[in-house]
Amino acid sequence: MSSITIKDLAQKLNLSPSTISKALKDSYEINAETKLRVKEMAKQLKYVPNSYAAGLRKKTSQTIAVIVPNITDAFFAKAIYGIHSAANQNNYNVLIYISSEDYKNEKLFIESLGNGKVDGIIISLSGNNNNHEYIRFTQDEGLPVVLFDCVDFDIDTTKIISDDYTNGIKATEHLLQRGCRNIAYLGISEQVSTDISRREGYKFALEKAHIAFDPELMITYSHNTATNISRIKSVLQNKKPDGLVASIHDLAIAAYYACNELNIKIGQEVKIIGFSNFDAVDLFNPPLTTITQPAFNIGEQAATILIQSLEKKNYTLKNEVITLPSVLYKRASTQ
Amino acid sequence: MSSITIKDLAQKLNLSPSTISKALKDSYEINAETKLRVKEMAKQLKYVPNSYAAGLRKKTSQTIAVIVPNITDAFFAKAIYGIHSAANQNNYNVLIYISSEDYKNEKLFIESLGNGKVDGIIISLSGNNNNHEYIRFTQDEGLPVVLFDCVDFDIDTTKIISDDYTNGIKATEHLLQRGCRNIAYLGISEQVSTDISRREGYKFALEKAHIAFDPELMITYSHNTATNISRIKSVLQNKKPDGLVASIHDLAIAAYYACNELNIKIGQEVKIIGFSNFDAVDLFNPPLTTITQPAFNIGEQAATILIQSLEKKNYTLKNEVITLPSVLYKRASTQ
Repeated sequence: MSSITIKDLAQKLNLSPSTISKALKDSYEINAETKLRVKEMAKQLKYVPNSYAAGLRKKTSQTIAVIVPNITDAFFAKAIYGIHSAANQNNYNVLIYISSEDYKNEKLFIESLGNGKVDGIIISLSGNNNNHEYIRFTQDEGLPVVLFDCVDFDIDTTKIISDDYTNGIKATEHLLQRGCRNIAYLGISEQVSTDISRREGYKFALEKAHIAFDPELMITYSHNTATNISRIKSVLQNKKPDGLVASIHDLAIAAYYACNELNIKIGQEVKIIGFSNFDAVDLFNPPLTTITQPAFNIGEQAATILIQSLEKKNYTLKNEVITLPSVLYKRASTQ
Repeated sequence: MSSITIKDLAQKLNLSPSTISKALKDSYEINAETKLRVKEMAKQLKYVPNSYAAGLRKKTSQTIAVIVPNITDAFFAKAIYGIHSAANQNNYNVLIYISSEDYKNEKLFIESLGNGKVDGIIISLSGNNNNHEYIRFTQDEGLPVVLFDCVDFDIDTTKIISDDYTNGIKATEHLLQRGCRNIAYLGISEQVSTDISRREGYKFALEKAHIAFDPELMITYSHNTATNISRIKSVLQNKKPDGLVASIHDLAIAAYYACNELNIKIGQEVKIIGFSNFDAVDLFNPPLTTITQPAFNIGEQAATILIQSLEKKNYTLKNEVITLPSVLYKRASTQ
């Protein structure tokens, strides 16, 4: 297989890789002279075009790379199990990579996947960067990519997500129905697609209930548990919220610790709802009300769709969003 | 690389693979005539001997295969994170395989790892089979194997475990100190090394306290949560234990559900201690007393040792057991 990539061409010609990619695809955005230069260089360096390279790859690895921000959150552990299950049924192996929520790791790993090491990639994006050009390069080089959970809607491929916006509304409306009027939102990051959608849902539900949005009721996640607890305690003390929407399991946990430390009665003084895939939240004191995503199914479907695209000749992944429904489990934390 | 394996030679000569392996190593156990036959056939089929094959492999994959019984238990998720972390630091990738606690899956996967797909394997054994001949074949073919957590002590390699026997004693003695005299043991399987050690520790602690061992107080794990709960309920009703040692997190969870369904007060009527790596057990009602294994460190050390052996020429893994200490966290479930 040729080892010449779009990047090599870009370097040689002092053009951006995306210009190279567009020129090779005869994009109207690129002028005729540049197209000619690119095509000449591609020919000279024996650049292997996408579909052929993909075909060659397919025969070599029977392996899918999976990139997740972390593995100890039950959502990702279950999603990986779903991916593994579908891969296994189709005789594919799973190469796993944990980005530790840092796009630089994600990028370095993806760049190491040349030479037919894998046939395709499934990613839940790290979310601390909005420039996903490196994923487009990978696609341009013939390696198909499926996104799940934390996605970039601008990337042209299949994305499997759960109904985050609807669930942001559902979580907030559940608290409103239980009498809360001063609801804080514990978010991951304003660059994570799931969180953006959930917080938009939260804002929409407040607006619908004629409650003014208060940015001081928004808390952002830190990788340090103690920091999360102290941020939540500070909001509990200064803003006296009567409800909390925790956008991930870790933040729901931190909220429990914060309330316990301040002797605030969960379910009575403050109601908590959390997005969580952990099995034993009904053993918590009090049991945690959750929005639970179909983690296994999301992973399974991402792998199934990717493998279908690998098995069919000349098949390209549809640019579509597949949304799988989550479930609201009402428990005593929102009594 | 030659695709002829020890197994192929075994088939051709109608001998067992372990005979072939021993013959090629000039073992005193094999007679001279057989040795000659094996070596002739190896030459004829261009069998590539171990060290050379291992050397070739090293250059090709920079990948470690990791096999775990499941991925949704926090112990394995954290161990994988530790393996990934060490692998990543040394520029190795991690190919993950989930055996779903079935040795047949484990065996099929290992057999698919020929042709330099990976440089070495890290396994926590599925435990439903005691014949690990397939792991020895893999070693004989030059692919190093490191075992962790659920291990087979008869396999000649490095094993990283936690101090299961000591912890079986420690867990049981903690319940004895809290006044329990009728302690049930909730085990995984009599074929899982961790469980065998923990249950031996449990028996030793009882004996030391002059309490007769009662096999009717032993419960064995099922893959079905409802079955586990019903088995525990049945023992709670028939044998009235005042203490439970749960050898894995899932069984501690099942014990909580069983007690809740029977309105048995945990910590007062029945004390529960569980082996668990889940972070939020102190939010349980009541908080769960745990023996917590150093999951991340176990994984990290397994990968570090394997990679060291891959990076050094002519280095073979020591036949040793490395034991990392666990910690007892006393909480209200054993108040």
